[in-house]
Amino acid sequence: MSTALTCTVELLSIGNELLLGNTVNTNASWVAEQVTELGGEVTRITTVGDNLEEISTAIREVLRRKPALLITTGGIGPTFDDMTLRALAKALRVGLRLNESAVSMIREHYARRFQKRRVPLTKPRLKMALIPDTGTPIRNPVGTAPGVRIRSGATDIFCLPGVPKEAKAIFRQTLSKVIRAKTGGMTFAEKWFKVKGVMESSLAPAIDKVMRTWRGVYIKSHPRGIEASGRPSIELHLSISSLNTRNARKLLQNASQDLARRLTALGGRVTHLS
Amino acid sequence: MSTALTCTVELLSIGNELLLGNTVNTNASWVAEQVTELGGEVTRITTVGDNLEEISTAIREVLRRKPALLITTGGIGPTFDDMTLRALAKALRVGLRLNESAVSMIREHYARRFQKRRVPLTKPRLKMALIPDTGTPIRNPVGTAPGVRIRSGATDIFCLPGVPKEAKAIFRQTLSKVIRAKTGGMTFAEKWFKVKGVMESSLAPAIDKVMRTWRGVYIKSHPRGIEASGRPSIELHLSISSLNTRNARKLLQNASQDLARRLTALGGRVTHLS
Repeated sequence: MSTALTCTVELLSIGNELLLGNTVNTNASWVAEQVTELGGEVTRITTVGDNLEEISTAIREVLRRKPALLITTGGIGPTFDDMTLRALAKALRVGLRLNESAVSMIREHYARRFQKRRVPLTKPRLKMALIPDTGTPIRNPVGTAPGVRIRSGATDIFCLPGVPKEAKAIFRQTLSKVIRAKTGGMTFAEKWFKVKGVMESSLAPAIDKVMRTWRGVYIKSHPRGIEASGRPSIELHLSISSLNTRNARKLLQNASQDLARRLTALGGRVTHLS
Repeated sequence: MSTALTCTVELLSIGNELLLGNTVNTNASWVAEQVTELGGEVTRITTVGDNLEEISTAIREVLRRKPALLITTGGIGPTFDDMTLRALAKALRVGLRLNESAVSMIREHYARRFQKRRVPLTKPRLKMALIPDTGTPIRNPVGTAPGVRIRSGATDIFCLPGVPKEAKAIFRQTLSKVIRAKTGGMTFAEKWFKVKGVMESSLAPAIDKVMRTWRGVYIKSHPRGIEASGRPSIELHLSISSLNTRNARKLLQNASQDLARRLTALGGRVTHLS
C-alpha cells in the first residue's frame, strides 16, 4: 500500500504582457490542470511583471509559504527583459554562473535547427545559460532556452519558458514525473452536470447537504446565465482527490446521484456533461 | 494643464476553479486590459482558492503594498464557498452587517426578473447583502450579487462578481470612472509588428537600442514559432503610457520607424499589425 502525500504547488507567472492584459494567462490554467490531474494541489498563482525587484520579492514570499513545488513561467529567454534567473539568484542569495551544460544545450539546439549555417553564441544567446549557482539546466525539447531546476529549503523550484509550447514540453518531459513521485499515486476524479430551471441561490442548500454527506467530494457551481426561456442555466463541477481510486470513484458516483435527485426535486432539469 | 497621476492596481482573483485549472482567468486579463487602456498600471495579479484564511491573508498582503486600487473578482455569490466579503471583513478587522441598500438591490433584482412569482429572500439570498461594516454596495446591472466598495488606508477596494458578464458590467458602470479620475487623463498607446526571418536572440540588441533612444516606449517580443519555411516568426508589441497624448503618439511613431529599419537591416520581413 502506498502512502498519501500532498504535493502543494505555487505558480509564478512572469511577464508585462500579462499585467497589460493583452495576453491571457493560459500557461497558468494549463499547468494547474496538469498538476491537479497528477494529484497535486495548486494553492496560489501569482503574476508579476518583468521587473527584477518584483520577481525576486514574489519568489521570497512563495518560499516563506513552503510549497513542495514552485513553478515559474516566463522570463528565461534572450531579451533584456527576461530576468527570472537573475531574480531567482537574488531571492536565493546565490550567484549567477555561465553553466557549461546549459551552453552545450543551447549550442546543440542551434546546430540541430540550422544544420549548415553557423550560429555564433552571442551575448543574448549565452544569457540563456546564465543560471543560479546551485541550479541545474533542463533540456528544452522544442526551443532554445533551457529550463532550470533548483532546490531551496522545502521547495523544489522549476523555471519554465513563457512560450506555451516550450513550457508544456518541459512539463511533460520532467515535471509530470516529479509530481507523480511526490504525490505517491494520488488521483483526481471529476464530473460535470448542467442544471436548468433552478437559481444558484436555491441550489446552495442542496450542494451544502451533498458535500456534508459525501465527505471529500467538492462541488462548485458556475452560473451560465439565463436562457431565452427565462430559466437560469448552471453548470456544476464535482471533484475529489484521493489515494484510493476505487473509493474516490464510488464517492463521486454516490454524490452525483444524490445531487441529481435533489436538483430534480427542486424542479431542475439535469444533464450529465461528463 | 492636468497633472500626471499614477494609478497602481492589484487584482485578486478568487475561486477554486482557477487553481484546479478548469477555468482560464479571462476576468484578470479583461480587467487588466481595461485598467491599462484607462492609463492605470496593474502591478500584480494574485489568484487564491475559496478559502477564508487564504483570501484574507492575500488581501492583507496587497494592502501592505499600498496600491491605489484593489479589484477582487469572485466569491460574492450565494453559495457556501462564496466567502470574499467575510474574508475582507476579517482582513480589515471590521464586522459584517446586513446592508439595507444591498437587500433592496437584491429584492429589486428578483422583482424585475420574476415579475409575477414571489421570490422569498432566503438565507443564501440574504447572504449576498452581508457586507463589511464600512463598505458600500454597488448596483449589479446584470446579476443578483451587488458589488462592494470599501476604503482601507491608501487603497480603494472593489469586489466584483466572478461571472464575467457581471464583472464587466460593474466595471464599465463604476470602476472605469474611478480609474479615469485617478489617472487624471493618462493615455495608453500601442502598436503591434510581426517580423519574420530573424531569431529572438538576434532581435534583442535592436530592441534594447530603440528603447534607450525613445525613452518611455516599452517593447516586448513574443516568439510565435517557426514557419514551414524554417524562418522564425516573432510578434513585437510597442507601448507607451503618458499624460501627453500627442507626444506619446509621436514617440511611438518614431520608435516604430526606427525599429522597423533595424529589423529590415537584420534581414527581417516586417509587417505592421496595428
